[in-house]
Amino acid sequence: MADETAVRFGILGCANISIKLSKAIETAPNATLRAIGSRSLEKGTTFAAEHGLPEEVRIYGSYEAVVEDDEVDAVYVPLPTGLHVAWAVRAAERGKHVLLEKPVAMNVAELDRILEACEAHGVQFMDGTMWVHHPRTAKMKEALSDAQRFGQLKLIHSFMAYNPGPEFINHSIRAKPELDGLGALGDVGWYSIRAILWAVDYELPKSVLAFPGTAFNENGVIISCGSSLHWEDGRSATFHCSFLTYLAFEVTILGSKGSLHLQDLTLPFEENFGCGTFSEASEVDYGKIEPGRWCPKANEHVVETEFTQEVLMVKEFADLVRKIKRGEMKPEKAWPVESRKTQVVLDAVKESIERGYQPVQIGS
Amino acid sequence: MADETAVRFGILGCANISIKLSKAIETAPNATLRAIGSRSLEKGTTFAAEHGLPEEVRIYGSYEAVVEDDEVDAVYVPLPTGLHVAWAVRAAERGKHVLLEKPVAMNVAELDRILEACEAHGVQFMDGTMWVHHPRTAKMKEALSDAQRFGQLKLIHSFMAYNPGPEFINHSIRAKPELDGLGALGDVGWYSIRAILWAVDYELPKSVLAFPGTAFNENGVIISCGSSLHWEDGRSATFHCSFLTYLAFEVTILGSKGSLHLQDLTLPFEENFGCGTFSEASEVDYGKIEPGRWCPKANEHVVETEFTQEVLMVKEFADLVRKIKRGEMKPEKAWPVESRKTQVVLDAVKESIERGYQPVQIGS
Repeated sequence: MADETAVRFGILGCANISIKLSKAIETAPNATLRAIGSRSLEKGTTFAAEHGLPEEVRIYGSYEAVVEDDEVDAVYVPLPTGLHVAWAVRAAERGKHVLLEKPVAMNVAELDRILEACEAHGVQFMDGTMWVHHPRTAKMKEALSDAQRFGQLKLIHSFMAYNPGPEFINHSIRAKPELDGLGALGDVGWYSIRAILWAVDYELPKSVLAFPGTAFNENGVIISCGSSLHWEDGRSATFHCSFLTYLAFEVTILGSKGSLHLQDLTLPFEENFGCGTFSEASEVDYGKIEPGRWCPKANEHVVETEFTQEVLMVKEFADLVRKIKRGEMKPEKAWPVESRKTQVVLDAVKESIERGYQPVQIGS
Repeated sequence: MADETAVRFGILGCANISIKLSKAIETAPNATLRAIGSRSLEKGTTFAAEHGLPEEVRIYGSYEAVVEDDEVDAVYVPLPTGLHVAWAVRAAERGKHVLLEKPVAMNVAELDRILEACEAHGVQFMDGTMWVHHPRTAKMKEALSDAQRFGQLKLIHSFMAYNPGPEFINHSIRAKPELDGLGALGDVGWYSIRAILWAVDYELPKSVLAFPGTAFNENGVIISCGSSLHWEDGRSATFHCSFLTYLAFEVTILGSKGSLHLQDLTLPFEENFGCGTFSEASEVDYGKIEPGRWCPKANEHVVETEFTQEVLMVKEFADLVRKIKRGEMKPEKAWPVESRKTQVVLDAVKESIERGYQPVQIGS
C-alpha cells in the first residue's frame, strides 16, 4: 500500500495488459490506482471485480472521465496504437503524466505531437517497455561496457516472435490497420529495435535495410518482417519479428572479446530472476581451438530482483512524477528520447519495406 | 588400428587442420594414414615427428608424390582454397577419392571442374564439414522434422565468428586473395550457409540479399559480412560471419511450434557430447503469457558419441570408398550435391556484396 504522496494512476482501457499494470501500480510503494476507464461502465465494473481491484478505485464508463479526474496524477494508456495520439495528448493537456504502452505511435510525426504536448504541459513521458527496468539490464550494460571483458561491440541479432494463431492474426485488434497498423513490427519488433539501440547506447544507425519476404495478414498488416541496421563504424544488427513462430524474445550481442546471450529479454523465464550468459575470451588461444578446449561454456549470470520489471517501471515513473510535482525537477528527457529513437528506426524499417527493400538513410 | 581393407589416406599439406585429421584417420576403424606430402621433405618430417605419426606413414616432399602413390586410395586436401581445383582434379584423375576441406572452391565454376573430374573417374567426393557427421545433427533433424513438436520451419539465424587478431587478418594464408580469397565468408560463413541449407533440407533459397557494411582486410578480402536468404513460401534466414568478434558458432531455428538453439554447432563445447536446446509450445497459452508461466526454459538435450565428429566424417567417407572399391556402389551423389548448393549460395552472397547489396536470384 502506498503512502499519502503516492502517485495516483488512472488506466485508460481494460486491455489484458491492464491486469498486469493494475497489480504493478498497487504493488509499487510510491503509486496507487485511483481510476480505470472503459468504453462501458459495465465492462469496467466486471474488470474490477474479476481482478480484485480495491474498492476505492473509481470505475468510469469512458476514458474521458479518467483524464478529467482531478485526483488522477498520471495515466497509463494501453489503448490500441491508433488511439494513442488522441488520448495521450488529451491527458497531457489535462496535466496528467503519461505512461504510454508500446508501440507508442503509428509514426514519428504522431509521437512528436504527443511529446510536444507533454513538454508544453510539463508532464513526464515514458513508454511501457518493461525490460529496461529489470536490474539485469543494468548488469548487462555493465558487462557490455567493460572494454577488457567484452571489447568493442560488433554484431547484434534479435528474434522477437510468438504464434497467436490465425484468428488473432486476422481478426484481433492487433490485426486492424487503423488500430494496430504496425502489426508484429510494432508489437514485438519494437523490443528488438529497442534492445539494439540500448546495446549501442542509443546511437542511431546510419542506414536500415529491411529483408525481402515480409508477410502481411488479410488486412495488409505486417505479421512477419526483419531488417538489418548499420552504423558508420561497421557495427551491424539484424532482427526478425513475427506472429508466425514459437515464442522468441532473444538477443545476442557479439563484441571483439566477449558475447552476451539472452533468450527471455522482454519477459524473464522466472518472475524474480533474470538470467543471461556471458562469455569472455581471456582463455582462448585462437591457434588451437579444439573441442573441449576452445571455449568454456558461457557463464550464466543470475540477477535477483525484489520487484518484477513492471513494478520497477511504475516505481521509476512514479518517482519522477513525484519529484516533478514537488518542483524538484523538470520531466526527465532521456525517456522520450529513447522512445523517439526506437520509433525513428521502426519507421525506417517500414519505409524500407514499402520502398521494395531499398536502404533507408537515417539522419543524425 | 585399421584392418587390411582399411582405406589408405594421403594428406596434402601440413596445415594445422592436418593434425586433427591425421589423428581422425588413425582413429577411424576403417581408415589408415599412408602418406603425407608437404612442400618440403623437412617440413613433412618435422610434422610427422611433432605429431607422432606412425613410422609406416610415408613422408613426401611434394603433393605430387602423394597423388602418384599407388597405395593411396583417398586424399584429404586441406590446402588453401585457391589450390583446390588443381590438386583435387589431379587426385581424381589419378583415381583417388577426394575429401576436400571447406570452402571447397573459389566459386561454383571451379567446384564443377572438381566434381566433373570425380564423376569421370568414379571417385567419391566429400567436403570437410565435420558437424554434419555428429550424431546430434541427426537428432536435431528428427526434432525439426517433427511437425507436432516443431511445426513448420519459419526463421533461421546463424552467427559464425572468431577473432584471430590483425596479424592473421592481414598476413595469414586466409588473408591472401589468391589463396583464401573468400575470407571469413569461406572460412566460417560456409558453416552458416551449410547449417541453413541443412535445416531446410537443402532447398535452395529463391533470393539472397547481403547486408551493407562488409569489412575487408588490407588486400580486399572479406573479414566480416552477412546476408539474408529467402524462400518462396516465406521462410527466411540470416547469418553473419566475421573475423572481428569473439567466438560464435551458433544457430537458432524457429518453427511455428518450437525452437532449436545451438551455440557450438561447428565445434562442440565438449568433444564427446553435443548439446542443444529445444523448446516446444505445448504448454503455452498465448492469451496469458506471464513471467514464470509463459514458457518453460528450453530443454537441454545431450547426445553422446563414441567417436568425435571428425572421426565420424573419416569413417563415413571411408565406408563409401570401401564399397566403391568393392564395386558395391557408385559414388554417393548426396555429398557433392550438398557441397555444391552451399557454394551456390556463397557465390550469391559474394555477388550481392559486389553488386552493392542488390538481391541476387538463385535459379532452381
